[in-house]
Amino acid sequence: MSSKENRQLHLNLFVTPVGHHEAAWRHPDTDVDQLLDFSFFQRLAAKAEAAKLDSIFLADRVATSPSAVQYGAIGGYEPLTLLSALAVVTKRIGLIATVSTSFNEPFNLARRFASLDHLSGGRAGWNIITSGTDAEARNFNLEQIPEHAERYERAREFLDIAVKLWDSWERDALIRDKESGIYADHHKVHELNHKGKYFSVKGPLNVSRSPQGRPVLVQAGSSQDGRQFAAEHAEAIFTAQQSFDEARAFYGDIKRRAAKAGRSPGHITILPGICPIIGRTEEEAREKEAKLVELSNPAYSLIMLSNRVGFDLTGYPLDGPMPQLPVKEVRGHQSRTNLIVELAQRENLTLRQLLNRLAGGRGHRTVTGTPTQIADMLEHWFAEGAADGFNIMPQLMAGGLEDFLELVVPELQRRGLFRTEYTGTTLRDHYGLPYPENQFAVKPASQAHY
Amino acid sequence: MSSKENRQLHLNLFVTPVGHHEAAWRHPDTDVDQLLDFSFFQRLAAKAEAAKLDSIFLADRVATSPSAVQYGAIGGYEPLTLLSALAVVTKRIGLIATVSTSFNEPFNLARRFASLDHLSGGRAGWNIITSGTDAEARNFNLEQIPEHAERYERAREFLDIAVKLWDSWERDALIRDKESGIYADHHKVHELNHKGKYFSVKGPLNVSRSPQGRPVLVQAGSSQDGRQFAAEHAEAIFTAQQSFDEARAFYGDIKRRAAKAGRSPGHITILPGICPIIGRTEEEAREKEAKLVELSNPAYSLIMLSNRVGFDLTGYPLDGPMPQLPVKEVRGHQSRTNLIVELAQRENLTLRQLLNRLAGGRGHRTVTGTPTQIADMLEHWFAEGAADGFNIMPQLMAGGLEDFLELVVPELQRRGLFRTEYTGTTLRDHYGLPYPENQFAVKPASQAHY
Repeated sequence: MSSKENRQLHLNLFVTPVGHHEAAWRHPDTDVDQLLDFSFFQRLAAKAEAAKLDSIFLADRVATSPSAVQYGAIGGYEPLTLLSALAVVTKRIGLIATVSTSFNEPFNLARRFASLDHLSGGRAGWNIITSGTDAEARNFNLEQIPEHAERYERAREFLDIAVKLWDSWERDALIRDKESGIYADHHKVHELNHKGKYFSVKGPLNVSRSPQGRPVLVQAGSSQDGRQFAAEHAEAIFTAQQSFDEARAFYGDIKRRAAKAGRSPGHITILPGICPIIGRTEEEAREKEAKLVELSNPAYSLIMLSNRVGFDLTGYPLDGPMPQLPVKEVRGHQSRTNLIVELAQRENLTLRQLLNRLAGGRGHRTVTGTPTQIADMLEHWFAEGAADGFNIMPQLMAGGLEDFLELVVPELQRRGLFRTEYTGTTLRDHYGLPYPENQFAVKPASQAHY
Repeated sequence: MSSKENRQLHLNLFVTPVGHHEAAWRHPDTDVDQLLDFSFFQRLAAKAEAAKLDSIFLADRVATSPSAVQYGAIGGYEPLTLLSALAVVTKRIGLIATVSTSFNEPFNLARRFASLDHLSGGRAGWNIITSGTDAEARNFNLEQIPEHAERYERAREFLDIAVKLWDSWERDALIRDKESGIYADHHKVHELNHKGKYFSVKGPLNVSRSPQGRPVLVQAGSSQDGRQFAAEHAEAIFTAQQSFDEARAFYGDIKRRAAKAGRSPGHITILPGICPIIGRTEEEAREKEAKLVELSNPAYSLIMLSNRVGFDLTGYPLDGPMPQLPVKEVRGHQSRTNLIVELAQRENLTLRQLLNRLAGGRGHRTVTGTPTQIADMLEHWFAEGAADGFNIMPQLMAGGLEDFLELVVPELQRRGLFRTEYTGTTLRDHYGLPYPENQFAVKPASQAHY
């Protein structure tokens, strides 16, 4: 197996404080102080940067509950706060934060990402989510989460405004002539005067144009609405895919939709999640896996799964089948719920078996093996049209992250599949994305203009 | 003159990228790249910390306009982004960010400040503002800024929720017992179930209790509504006071209101703004002042003043009197507008003279002199019941900040008025504030409990 042309894969590290496995905080190697220890995140980012990863990424959820924190390592940093701090102790790696369009105002969000992009010298990315749970809605003046289609309608208007705000300062608007006292060319700083269904925003933004023009736009929804939104707007996609066939089908679908929307399919980097457990031998890897299963708490896993699918599974026998979910429209995490139900049916899993499968990555693909086996799998998906790279989700941060960076990344580099040096300075450079055009700029016919 | 007891004054540095004078960016010593140069802010914070200042502070306004950026150095960092980054390159100095209650959600705000408080080891402060301009309202779905009383009503509910969110995790809620798998005591993590006029928030917060319990609460409104709000809730107050008599009256009023509200007046630190221009001789100081006046642009100053008082002053003759403002309720910056009108009337200033007086600090007290003269003034206000300390607003950052830190601070230290070493680690420690009680904690009768 080898990749066609000189195509290089992209690797994003999906950061959690202790690891993606639900029981990671109970592992002997985990220091539970990691959750709020900035120096831990600083070391982690430095390692990922030394391995030349494209980016690090933080997910987000704007709710928790007393029952969830009873068992889960919850209660750490808000993503943009942490990435703002990491921006000034790293130099090259991209910094992607998740922020919901359902519970924020476009002006605030555009401003914070523009600030992060300035602070990091052009390394900011925004993972656009619409949020999917009633628990989150109840922290923001609602009784339940709005319908799927309505959330995406709001997200489209939100993104449209955010992009206009980022474009509201042209790249060459700053003059800063002390002699004349002219700070900016006011013809190149634009009001939006947006009035829409959800928002009215006058503009301009109060942050000047940032190094990347705007953050890299990332998307993670895999429902029909989510796919279409991603095909039209996303520059990178995080996705949960259980099998090669599903991943390839998803990959093809997105690239076709993108082409249909008039975009270059090469400008959407598709990154399925991979939750590895790595051993120098298969046996060592299996032992590591068994240790995490042993530390798992089905009571907690059931709460997590119940929250995820929006149906209370507590009380169902663990060694019986996954119960039939009531037929209703899934308002929340539609595609992930479908993935979980299909996984249980396809492999005929008991509830306990399903919980163990989900414990390592909440529906993302788990893989246990040697560095060569894991590199083989990544290369297969990459070379055969199922991925442009991967969203790396170590089940255990302590040790598991290093295993990937020190054992798998060098193997991918030896195969010529992954960079050994950064070739650019911005996240757009790393992902091979163009600098965005500015919708407000007047382009002289003879001149390339930003 | 000497202070009674061993009372020490408090010094906050009000940070702007170039200086508080409107023309600071045009000064030859100013590097206009400062606006977005993190290393500049890092050096500035390091200097303020080396001088043992209590805190640094960033103001905020969520709008600008093409006409404002034509002349003004505008377009820098969102405050919490910048302070999050500064948190990890400083050790002791407090970090106070302004965030408006009118254009945010309590859950998002509480979470970000809890994150900053964790990140900084207990050095976060929140300057609570309600925002006062239509230009800001128009970036957040409104046609005009809500009435003064309505903004404060929303602010009260907002603050009530934010405090409940910060209290939603008790100080000893975290158990983190790997053996049993219990991460937190779910009886010590509380839902709020708040349902009010403006907000419904279920809680709990998804960040565990931060080192200070909650950020230090700062307030800057000086209207009747603002004073009452401050007396009931603020732990530090930034205020614009033109004269000693006004400052003393304000100081007395706030302390009386606080006592009446059942609070200890010692737990509100009142910090009038001071915009110094410092020379080793009076002549040198006057020359520095003249240089800034020379660089001022009345056209820009008029736009700024018009925005501030909510009335278009452009076109009025600069050498005539300040025109009568139409009699109407001031919706926006009520107390500052009154201060400006009274200043013009009391001193019988032409519009040009008024603009020059305001250019150095937008209505805050400007003072030009030698280190001894400035220290005398600060000591007088401090010793005679007009201030607990000062909000230092250098008219020029390049040089002006150093003048204050290197010439005035040592003079205050020689007089025994200002610390020569930090005695605590948190912003609450610096301001002499108690650790806040938790409204959800059950207090055993015999035991002090947080």
